[in-house]
Amino acid sequence: MEQRKRIRLVVAYDGTNYHGWQIQKNGMTIESELNRCLTELLGEPIEVIGASRTDAGVHAMGNVAVFDTSHQMPGKKIAYALNQRLPEDIRIQKSEEVPADWHPRHVKSRKTYEYRIYRGEFPMPVKRLYSHFIYADLDVGKMQEAAAYLEGEHDFRSFCQTGAQVESTVRTIHSLQVEEQGADLVVRVCGDGFLYNMVRIIVGTLLEAGQGRRLPESMTDILEARERSAAGPTAPANGLMLMRYEFFE
Amino acid sequence: MEQRKRIRLVVAYDGTNYHGWQIQKNGMTIESELNRCLTELLGEPIEVIGASRTDAGVHAMGNVAVFDTSHQMPGKKIAYALNQRLPEDIRIQKSEEVPADWHPRHVKSRKTYEYRIYRGEFPMPVKRLYSHFIYADLDVGKMQEAAAYLEGEHDFRSFCQTGAQVESTVRTIHSLQVEEQGADLVVRVCGDGFLYNMVRIIVGTLLEAGQGRRLPESMTDILEARERSAAGPTAPANGLMLMRYEFFE
Repeated sequence: MEQRKRIRLVVAYDGTNYHGWQIQKNGMTIESELNRCLTELLGEPIEVIGASRTDAGVHAMGNVAVFDTSHQMPGKKIAYALNQRLPEDIRIQKSEEVPADWHPRHVKSRKTYEYRIYRGEFPMPVKRLYSHFIYADLDVGKMQEAAAYLEGEHDFRSFCQTGAQVESTVRTIHSLQVEEQGADLVVRVCGDGFLYNMVRIIVGTLLEAGQGRRLPESMTDILEARERSAAGPTAPANGLMLMRYEFFE
Repeated sequence: MEQRKRIRLVVAYDGTNYHGWQIQKNGMTIESELNRCLTELLGEPIEVIGASRTDAGVHAMGNVAVFDTSHQMPGKKIAYALNQRLPEDIRIQKSEEVPADWHPRHVKSRKTYEYRIYRGEFPMPVKRLYSHFIYADLDVGKMQEAAAYLEGEHDFRSFCQTGAQVESTVRTIHSLQVEEQGADLVVRVCGDGFLYNMVRIIVGTLLEAGQGRRLPESMTDILEARERSAAGPTAPANGLMLMRYEFFE
C-alpha cells in the first residue's frame, strides 16, 4: 500500500495581484496557485488546506498550509522544488513533514498580524503596496490608549464583519501595540484567533481615536454594543500582513 | 511680456516599471511621464531637468527636477494638481518656485542613497521589489570595516562603470554606514556626488567583504588600482533608493 504523508508549508506572498487565499470561480488566488504548482511538481492532484484564508490584497510573511502526498520527495526539499515553479510573488519559506492528522485550524495557535500606516502629505510610491496612506495628524498616544482597552478576552462582535458565520465571537487578544517607525505607524496584534475583518476594523477604529473622533475609553462601549455599526470603518487590505503562526501541539 | 518662472519638484517613484529617469527612444521613463503630465496640466510644452538620472529599476523618495513655465498656477499648488495626473508609482512630494537661474546640477548638494539587502533562506515576496535578496552569511562587522576605508575624499575610478565620461573621478563620501534592521541590511551613503553606478559597485564590493572574499583593508588597494576590474560586481538596481537631496545655495 502506498505511504501517504502530510506536509506543512510556511507560505509568504505579496497579495497585490491575487483575489485572496481561497479558490474562486474567477481570478487567481494563493490557494489555486499552490494547488496548480504542487500538482505539477508531485504528479498527483493536490489540494492544500490553509491556516488563514486571507482577503484580497492582504499580504503574508508566514501563512501556513498542509497537504497530503504519496510522492517520495523529502518534506524539507519541497520548498526548494516548489519555489522553482511558483510565481515570484509567492515563496515557500519552509516545508516539513507533520503527523498525518495535523490540521492547521484544529490545533491551538497564535497569530501575529501587522498593519502598516504611512503618514505624509502625499503618498509615497515605494510604500503604496504595503501600507495604508493617511494624510492626517494622528495622536499616537490616544491610539495606544484605545488599543489597551481591546487587549484580553472580549466579545468582539462589534469588530466582526456582518454576515460572517461563527459560533462564538469571543476572542483573546494577547497584545495590541501601536508603534512609530519614522513616518510609518505599525499596529501589531497577536491573538489566538480573529473574526472576519477583525484586525482591519480594529485599525479603522484606532485611526478614528488617533484623529480625535472617538475617545480611547469609548472602546468599552463599542465592545458592549455587540454590533458592527458601533465600531469604525474597515481599514484597506493593502496595509495588512500576516506575520507568523505559532502552533502549540 | 509674459513672466516665466522656475519650479522645483521633489519627485518620488517606484522604479520597477520604468526604464530609468532619462528619456529613451523606447520605453517609459520618469522624465517622459513628468513631461507628458506637466505639458497636459500647464498647456505648454514642458521639459524637466533632473538632478539625478537614476538607472532602470532604481527607486527614489526624493529626486529633484526643475522646469520653467509661464502658467499662473502658484508653485506650491503644482504638486497637488500634477499628482492627479501622474501614475500611482510617481508622486510629487513638494513643489515650489526657485530663482530663474537655479539648476539642480550646478549647485552644491549632498545626496543620500540607501541600498537594502534582504538576508534569508528564500526570497520574501513583499521585499522583492525594494531589496536585493542574498542567501549567504554576511559578516556585518567586516562590511562596516571595509566601508570605513571608503569614507572621505578619494579617486573612485575603480568604483565607476567603464564608459562613463567624467572630467574627474575624485569624489567625497561623507558617510558610508552598514546597519542591521532585522533580516535587512541597509547600506546608507551620503556624498557630494557619485560616479556612474558607484553606489551599486560599492555595495557589490562590500558584499564580497561580508562573505570573506575580500579583506576590509583591501579597499585601499582597490582605490589605488583606479580600474573597474579591481572592485566587486555591480549590485542589482532594485535594492537602491535615492533618499534625498540637500542643496547649499
